[in-house]
Amino acid sequence: MRLVQFQAPHLAGPHLGLESGNGRGVIDLNAFEPTLPKTMVEFLEQGEATLSAVRRALATQLPVLPRSEVTFLAPVTRPDKVVCVGMNYADHCREQNVPVPKEPIIFSKFASAIVGPYDNIILPPESQEVDWEVELAVVIGKRGKYIKATDAMAHVAGFTVAHDVSARDWQMRRNGKQWLLGKTFDTFCPLGPALVTKDSVADPHNLKICCRVNGEVMQSSNTNQMVFKTEELIAWVSQFVTLYPGDIILTGTPPGVGVFRKPPVFLKKGDEVQCEIEELGVIINKVV
Amino acid sequence: MRLVQFQAPHLAGPHLGLESGNGRGVIDLNAFEPTLPKTMVEFLEQGEATLSAVRRALATQLPVLPRSEVTFLAPVTRPDKVVCVGMNYADHCREQNVPVPKEPIIFSKFASAIVGPYDNIILPPESQEVDWEVELAVVIGKRGKYIKATDAMAHVAGFTVAHDVSARDWQMRRNGKQWLLGKTFDTFCPLGPALVTKDSVADPHNLKICCRVNGEVMQSSNTNQMVFKTEELIAWVSQFVTLYPGDIILTGTPPGVGVFRKPPVFLKKGDEVQCEIEELGVIINKVV
Repeated sequence: MRLVQFQAPHLAGPHLGLESGNGRGVIDLNAFEPTLPKTMVEFLEQGEATLSAVRRALATQLPVLPRSEVTFLAPVTRPDKVVCVGMNYADHCREQNVPVPKEPIIFSKFASAIVGPYDNIILPPESQEVDWEVELAVVIGKRGKYIKATDAMAHVAGFTVAHDVSARDWQMRRNGKQWLLGKTFDTFCPLGPALVTKDSVADPHNLKICCRVNGEVMQSSNTNQMVFKTEELIAWVSQFVTLYPGDIILTGTPPGVGVFRKPPVFLKKGDEVQCEIEELGVIINKVV
Repeated sequence: MRLVQFQAPHLAGPHLGLESGNGRGVIDLNAFEPTLPKTMVEFLEQGEATLSAVRRALATQLPVLPRSEVTFLAPVTRPDKVVCVGMNYADHCREQNVPVPKEPIIFSKFASAIVGPYDNIILPPESQEVDWEVELAVVIGKRGKYIKATDAMAHVAGFTVAHDVSARDWQMRRNGKQWLLGKTFDTFCPLGPALVTKDSVADPHNLKICCRVNGEVMQSSNTNQMVFKTEELIAWVSQFVTLYPGDIILTGTPPGVGVFRKPPVFLKKGDEVQCEIEELGVIINKVV
């Protein structure tokens, strides 16, 4: 199942939806079942009961809104946490000439950085070095602390595509070398297009992952290059913090980012970035 | 006004309250005005209208629940952001032999670290170096981006006491020197006892600030030692991110933390930490 948050002119506010069919129109889940919550975080908090309502919706002949009539929001907005993992692709470590980390390196973005799958990335005047990073994002479905790796997939709702937009000057040279500010400018976390539930992903650790800038392939790898897989990341992070439904884990980026090119390349106004992961879809964000 | 979130045996869930009178009992604002939201974040999102309802409550003779009958929660829970500032007391910089920063150093905790003013701090088995840090916390009342320092106080709802509990091993030597994990273990952000609205604080930058461990004074300074004041911090942070109602800014700690003592001292099970700020009150958290 491909769950989305969307808006449409005839609706008062955001609704939950289901991408459907070949044309990937949207079924309005809140119209089908008015008792369902209207945000993905609340939907996930309610657990299995809501998922079975969605399965009933899928089994019914429901009206499908064409994609042209809806605005896609990020599939999750205002989660408690956006957890990020640094240097988690073996090939990305080689590109930087750094050893593969022995433990995951964890940093974060504020939830206020999240934007929708087709929203603009605002180039901040404060940075001259804004870079791209396509990433597989894990969406937590069930609360937990000290989750064992062997139990971790039971805490996953599904996966989506993330763009970990990064201001390298702020990340690497300013702010006492704490990465947060360079990673968390408004609009620096496009997500989407859908939360693809885990039962619809054959193997999250064997998916082609790709980033194109103005149509040119900049990053092209496979999630099988991840150093720490979803299960290990959940076990690691949940030693420190309780994970809540809706929490998002960005699992790191493959090689090909702009800062390590010779000479370095950074995003500029007018660029269009496409981040794509096999089975999950593509998000397309223009830089303005 | 001293706004709180609290629970009581006769209530179904958390309520908003007002600390009142010499004994600082609690007026149940949701009982007085059932249309008021029950969380501080929603209350602040509604802005002036809700504050005037509280002023009406204050002007009325209302039943006051004795403190012994209520459980105080953190005055703000699940904010979008917990922004933290490093090395923001001139005297704390001298203690570390580091220059006073030219720009604020910004890091963060996850909101999941927040606990109430009298809740326990759970000592994680993953750290051997858990340390105390009393801090003045600013609570944002009004959304804004690119807020000018001269306009910043209009975006402040009020102030509260924070304890920025810090696992020094994880902050300083692990996780690629990104501070996040050492700062964000569950229970590492006690807050309270009340959100003291700004009109009730004579000068937030001239308040005695103190931390006692088992009754012994460990930190004792004044918020006049802050390098970057509230207004400058809001201007700085809002260059990067939109600030939302309920967002919290921890403004840094004075000298006297355990890690810079000779020999270093860290928290152990059974310790009781009191963080106190003049006019705001004291939070008391036992280490378990």
